[in-house]
Amino acid sequence: MPESPIRKLVPYAEDAIKQGKTIYHLNIGQPDIKTPQVALDAVKNNTIEILEYSRSQGSDTYREKLANYYAKHEIDVTLDDIVVTTGASEALQFLFSSVMDPGDEVIISEPFYANYIAFSIATGIKVVPAVCNIDDNFALPTLSAFEKLITPKTKAILICNPGNPTGYLYSKAEINKLASIAIEHDLYLVADEVYREFVYDGHKHYSILQEKGVDEHAIIIDSVSKRYSMCGARVGCLVSKNKAVMETVLKFAQARLSPPTYAQIASEAALETPQSYFDDVIEEYVERRNTLISELQKIEGLKVAKPKGAFYCIVELPIKDSDHFAKWLLESFDVDGETVMVAPAAGFYSTPGVGSNQIRIAYVLKKESLIKAVNILKQALEVYKD
Amino acid sequence: MPESPIRKLVPYAEDAIKQGKTIYHLNIGQPDIKTPQVALDAVKNNTIEILEYSRSQGSDTYREKLANYYAKHEIDVTLDDIVVTTGASEALQFLFSSVMDPGDEVIISEPFYANYIAFSIATGIKVVPAVCNIDDNFALPTLSAFEKLITPKTKAILICNPGNPTGYLYSKAEINKLASIAIEHDLYLVADEVYREFVYDGHKHYSILQEKGVDEHAIIIDSVSKRYSMCGARVGCLVSKNKAVMETVLKFAQARLSPPTYAQIASEAALETPQSYFDDVIEEYVERRNTLISELQKIEGLKVAKPKGAFYCIVELPIKDSDHFAKWLLESFDVDGETVMVAPAAGFYSTPGVGSNQIRIAYVLKKESLIKAVNILKQALEVYKD
Ligand SMILES: Cc1ncc(COP(=O)(O)O)c(C=O)c1O
Ligand SMILES: Cc1ncc(COP(=O)(O)O)c(C=O)c1O
Repeated sequence: MPESPIRKLVPYAEDAIKQGKTIYHLNIGQPDIKTPQVALDAVKNNTIEILEYSRSQGSDTYREKLANYYAKHEIDVTLDDIVVTTGASEALQFLFSSVMDPGDEVIISEPFYANYIAFSIATGIKVVPAVCNIDDNFALPTLSAFEKLITPKTKAILICNPGNPTGYLYSKAEINKLASIAIEHDLYLVADEVYREFVYDGHKHYSILQEKGVDEHAIIIDSVSKRYSMCGARVGCLVSKNKAVMETVLKFAQARLSPPTYAQIASEAALETPQSYFDDVIEEYVERRNTLISELQKIEGLKVAKPKGAFYCIVELPIKDSDHFAKWLLESFDVDGETVMVAPAAGFYSTPGVGSNQIRIAYVLKKESLIKAVNILKQALEVYKD
Repeated sequence: MPESPIRKLVPYAEDAIKQGKTIYHLNIGQPDIKTPQVALDAVKNNTIEILEYSRSQGSDTYREKLANYYAKHEIDVTLDDIVVTTGASEALQFLFSSVMDPGDEVIISEPFYANYIAFSIATGIKVVPAVCNIDDNFALPTLSAFEKLITPKTKAILICNPGNPTGYLYSKAEINKLASIAIEHDLYLVADEVYREFVYDGHKHYSILQEKGVDEHAIIIDSVSKRYSMCGARVGCLVSKNKAVMETVLKFAQARLSPPTYAQIASEAALETPQSYFDDVIEEYVERRNTLISELQKIEGLKVAKPKGAFYCIVELPIKDSDHFAKWLLESFDVDGETVMVAPAAGFYSTPGVGSNQIRIAYVLKKESLIKAVNILKQALEVYKD
């Protein structure tokens, strides 16, 4: 189990705080947005007297309503196609355990969410990266480049849409292409859609389960963590219309007994969140993103792709080693007692060496803080020496 | 992933209900006891506005108070020796992933909690059973019998104390013996102590972490599920003073981000549960157990060991195949429209053939229901033919 490059920075951040520095956290994916009141209230008003195990696949009422939620997003599933999990994290663990055997390969578009590597190591699965490039705005590799990665051991293709850490939103044409590869080579096509709601500039999210003909191959990983700013609930789900997959997933779900009950109450109620909540949140993120990108573009030698979704972006810096740079920011740099914490991007790549001049920035801070933070980054780059 | 013999019965139970039968559930480990009010209230009165990820190892305040709880049970640990998990189930998964590699062996006293097999299969670990016998009341095998099971691949010994499904309570002398084996052969000694509080007849639970000299080997698996009748919370923990083990466990904990927040609030508050609650619960279980055992002993040809802890017992019946018997009870038998559901014991053994004439009974029903249920069992055995 490798330690994530962000975790490795934590002792440095603790020291910086001891030194009296203020840190702007550009490194984390924990939204600062308020959880919908309707979800908070449902938990406060619960009438449980015996806190029992729920069904292993999640409560029927919650799965029923979740199916309705998906219907609104043009994803046609029933409660039987859904297993409720303890966060998308557990859905990912079920995925790696259920549809792959040790030694099998999964192709993942890179850079990717760092814990994909953790879960693959835990289950003995080999990650084969489909490298995407900042100069292409992290678009999918060509069909032929993609097919070169497929071997007899390949079992699945995994994308994150919209992407953490890139903010990349896959087009309908790209999903189309992936679906045809999955069908032709008989692979699972897995989409981590936990950021489905966070899509900007009038774009529309296109789910793999909206794609026709790919039902037997498609598996969605989902979560309430980011959607409703409910990371601490620990509720996610795995969605698939492939009965054999769902049967295997259910066995893993049964072994761990059940997902958390209070969190399911909150998640079920959260489905009643009014559209105005999302409109406000999206407006807020768009403003933050626009601010962040325009501030970053003032920095010489820096490269950044404008993200269309999620709340992250990858930034290429005129430096060699962003691991070292991130530590240096915490240890040795400040502007009037303030510094920034960034996520070195190497942890989002499995290809050695790639991404070492990149960082990930999460825009989960208020606009004013983002402006200050980028200004600190600018001044830091003026004096930093590799 | 094998399907548990209890799960396999579920469709038969559903059919029995459709036929209009009433079922006494002797098969499940879900207590009917009320959750402590102090825990329920803490969740109702929570003031969370942003439901954030907690620390991966669990909140500091909860782990701090948990350490105090253990101190009261003469287990000397600090918050750093504790990782909070999503139920004992997740603690067991972390255990199998952290201290063993695929192909390694774990010796488990048999019969055992069926999901140990599920978690071992998921991680490629081989279970080597240390067979305990109903005629010995499920006491530990002799030292020499035990040592014969140890190979170069053995990494750990796992016991459940008090035991599910046996109700067996390990004596101090037995823990002593296990500790000396663990030290001599450099193995981990793991005790699943989720039923620690459920100990009867004036006996005292003796934890592996009360044993001197075994700190580097001992790992406790624990849970609030049964202790506070809070199965739906999904909070457990893994406790060890071995720093290397805790470091590895923490990496797995970080990969899945955090345990559930509401459930930690409930669990922290549950630590304030007054002793009178436990006194009442223990009294209730003792009465149920006494009723159950004395009713069972009225049945000819039946063998049962009086359990000293937990709320299960293994019963040997004058039949050949308890799997078939359990199905038959649901499908083809009733007394005035009522029947019983029992857990065939084969699922608690990895040794083929052993336990096929046994069932597990959980006494989580009221006394009157237990009397009725055993009476149905008695009449069933009078007419049942293998
Ligand atoms: C892409 C992606 N998938 C999955 C997760 C895990 O989320 P959860 O909190 O639902 O376990 C995260 C969390 O940051 C994520 O960014
Ligand atoms: C012996 C034993 N260990 C672990 C567990 C899992 O409990 P939890 O609800 O904490 O995951 C159970 C549940 O029945 C059990 O009986």
